[in-house]
Amino acid sequence: MKEELALFYQIFTTTKDAIERFMSMLDPVIEHAKDDHERLYYHHIYEEEEQRLSRLDVLIPLINKFQTEKEEKDFSPNNNEFNRLLQELNLEKFGLHNFVEHLDLALFSFTDEERSTLLNKLRADAYEGYQYVKEKLAAINERFDHDYVDPHAHHDEHHDHLAAPGTPPAANEPNKRRGFTVGSLI
Amino acid sequence: MKEELALFYQIFTTTKDAIERFMSMLDPVIEHAKDDHERLYYHHIYEEEEQRLSRLDVLIPLINKFQTEKEEKDFSPNNNEFNRLLQELNLEKFGLHNFVEHLDLALFSFTDEERSTLLNKLRADAYEGYQYVKEKLAAINERFDHDYVDPHAHHDEHHDHLAAPGTPPAANEPNKRRGFTVGSLI
Repeated sequence: MKEELALFYQIFTTTKDAIERFMSMLDPVIEHAKDDHERLYYHHIYEEEEQRLSRLDVLIPLINKFQTEKEEKDFSPNNNEFNRLLQELNLEKFGLHNFVEHLDLALFSFTDEERSTLLNKLRADAYEGYQYVKEKLAAINERFDHDYVDPHAHHDEHHDHLAAPGTPPAANEPNKRRGFTVGSLI
Repeated sequence: MKEELALFYQIFTTTKDAIERFMSMLDPVIEHAKDDHERLYYHHIYEEEEQRLSRLDVLIPLINKFQTEKEEKDFSPNNNEFNRLLQELNLEKFGLHNFVEHLDLALFSFTDEERSTLLNKLRADAYEGYQYVKEKLAAINERFDHDYVDPHAHHDEHHDHLAAPGTPPAANEPNKRRGFTVGSLI
């Protein structure tokens, strides 16, 4: 568990920095938006990432606490704080997933070399982090067989449509790649 | 507390139904999107609402449990389940806020009478629900003075830019209405 916690810590510290870089990129775009629709669009994404940033400000110290102060016996479903950690990690797994999509959406519009290079870098990190967190959480949930039911479990099956790094965002399109209809996601 | 719980239950049951109606509206739009960008855009919003729906499937029974099985003594910061309830409610306060913005974004594109009428109805409910949850959670946090620190507290100050129902979505634009720059949101 300590090994996973060390990597969780690194992933969420990295993504926290990535959010800040992405928000800095959105700042001038919002300020100079060509109309209200464009402004609301980017501002909305900005706010969702800002909300994620606030949650990470609580999660990262919690991961650190378990990493440094806790022992194996604390990693138990009988420990409420451990359950809270797992629940928060599960939420931020989706935070990483949504971040990948925010970056993909931005890649459609910010096609200049400077921004697209940075966006592709952030996307590669977020994608890798998402995959790691998803796999490790599934394994942890199985290992502990605790009574916390992942409310998003059915969701993950459909999330593999996220394209691997280096794939153009267009390939990150579920209907075309996987052949399932959107209706089947419900 | 029982009175608030009854209204929370009603608000989140209403918004659960609203999500399903909104997803049904997005379904054909995603299927017939004119290009990959448009498809990813609507699919991304669809997925975020789908994630919210999954969380509400857990939250609504938890509200109901506190409403029907619990007594005043259980509404205490010493009760881990109560703390979890408050934390989940706080998260779904932001879920309602983001839903209002998803609806505002949709109102820019779905301008035909049938869809815009429904969207405006869903928006009015979500806006009202958001305001109620925000106010009541602030009061509850104050009343119990528990040790849970709302990680989004600083955020709320800036969320009043959401326009009241009946205001055109364009008015829901923070920089223009409030005169603060996006940078000040950080």
